[in-house]
Amino acid sequence: MTEFPITDRTRVRRLPKRAVYERERLYAILDEALVCHVGFIANGQPFVIPTGYGRCDDRLYIHGSAASRMLNTAKDGVDLCVTVTLLDGLVLARSAFHHSMNYRSAVVFGRARAITDEEEKRAALRVITEHIVPGRWQDVRAPTALELKATLVLGLEISEASAKVRSGPPIDDEEDYQLPIWGGVLPVRTVYGAPVDDGRLLENVQPPEYALKYRRPGDAIDSRLEPTLPATR
Amino acid sequence: MTEFPITDRTRVRRLPKRAVYERERLYAILDEALVCHVGFIANGQPFVIPTGYGRCDDRLYIHGSAASRMLNTAKDGVDLCVTVTLLDGLVLARSAFHHSMNYRSAVVFGRARAITDEEEKRAALRVITEHIVPGRWQDVRAPTALELKATLVLGLEISEASAKVRSGPPIDDEEDYQLPIWGGVLPVRTVYGAPVDDGRLLENVQPPEYALKYRRPGDAIDSRLEPTLPATR
Repeated sequence: MTEFPITDRTRVRRLPKRAVYERERLYAILDEALVCHVGFIANGQPFVIPTGYGRCDDRLYIHGSAASRMLNTAKDGVDLCVTVTLLDGLVLARSAFHHSMNYRSAVVFGRARAITDEEEKRAALRVITEHIVPGRWQDVRAPTALELKATLVLGLEISEASAKVRSGPPIDDEEDYQLPIWGGVLPVRTVYGAPVDDGRLLENVQPPEYALKYRRPGDAIDSRLEPTLPATR
Repeated sequence: MTEFPITDRTRVRRLPKRAVYERERLYAILDEALVCHVGFIANGQPFVIPTGYGRCDDRLYIHGSAASRMLNTAKDGVDLCVTVTLLDGLVLARSAFHHSMNYRSAVVFGRARAITDEEEKRAALRVITEHIVPGRWQDVRAPTALELKATLVLGLEISEASAKVRSGPPIDDEEDYQLPIWGGVLPVRTVYGAPVDDGRLLENVQPPEYALKYRRPGDAIDSRLEPTLPATR
């Protein structure tokens, strides 16, 4: 299992025992999450924008929903920090001080460039679409040349990155275990409801298997909600 | 319902019809989410760190798990962009181009300052703890003076902020509705499992009601998993 070199930017300074530098474990976090938070600097100010993304080998593709502001800052590329976080649990300790969360987060640093080549952009959009709903790309109407032009995609080599993971029960001070206070973890998970059609389906069109049986990679437990999740919110 | 003034930083440029500037709706997003992504600049580079937080009136308190790197950048405060995102659904359109996600996100800009006064810090930690698990603070062993010293908390006035919301079905190009392709939404939700004790409870100590019936503010539907969520992962 290869490791990322530890740089000044990627060294986990606080609670370094939670640090993860193995490429494989970091990619598992990137592959499971759905939304990344992209940080960049514009006019000397930090911005953090949530957006969709996908990974192909050692490259991250970022959907350009925020790209116009990002790209205005530098035509030859923009320095990004891309962070992905999975929340696994709330950690209730006996002391306020030792409360925590169980999580897996990945941080990728690098200079992103706009994908301009039409074929590469098409491939990148495929990666992003398949990241969100594996199996979807082959079913949908492919992008036209005009649509490709209207879509901004950034590419970023994953060469400088680190992850941070906390799991398990609270760690209380030894004397606090004598207190009559409940300590433990409240598990947190993301689940997916039954597909809700948009009311404009042609006759006999059924929800695809990948929507009916949707789950994220690495999700060992069936994450379908039972009973069926109401569509509203 | 008061609105945030629209500034150059908070103006939603892409898909402005999704913009939300009402304070009440933005606060509802901040109050429901559990993790924020804090963006800041250090050594001319953008950083994005996930962390816990809480809101009290018009002030955001950010837990200092990332504060050492943040605070090293400026002793008299640090310019932050704090972003919170709730994912509500995956939007499957008939064309690749119109795929999207349903989400609610909030972005707060401002200069954060370290809370140094002991009483204010105690109050801020209470806000952060109660944000994550309402009802917890009164049950736990309160922070000592030493623990307060060891904890970094940042405070940020919520005066420059905006939100962005997408909901509902996919919006396809009119001619694409004639295609025999399924279109609709895959709902996404965060759910909470049964509390898992840490194996070191004193006799007769039971999980508290706020853990057994945990739910986020604004979560109209009971978000308990049935059957009980396994503790692993």
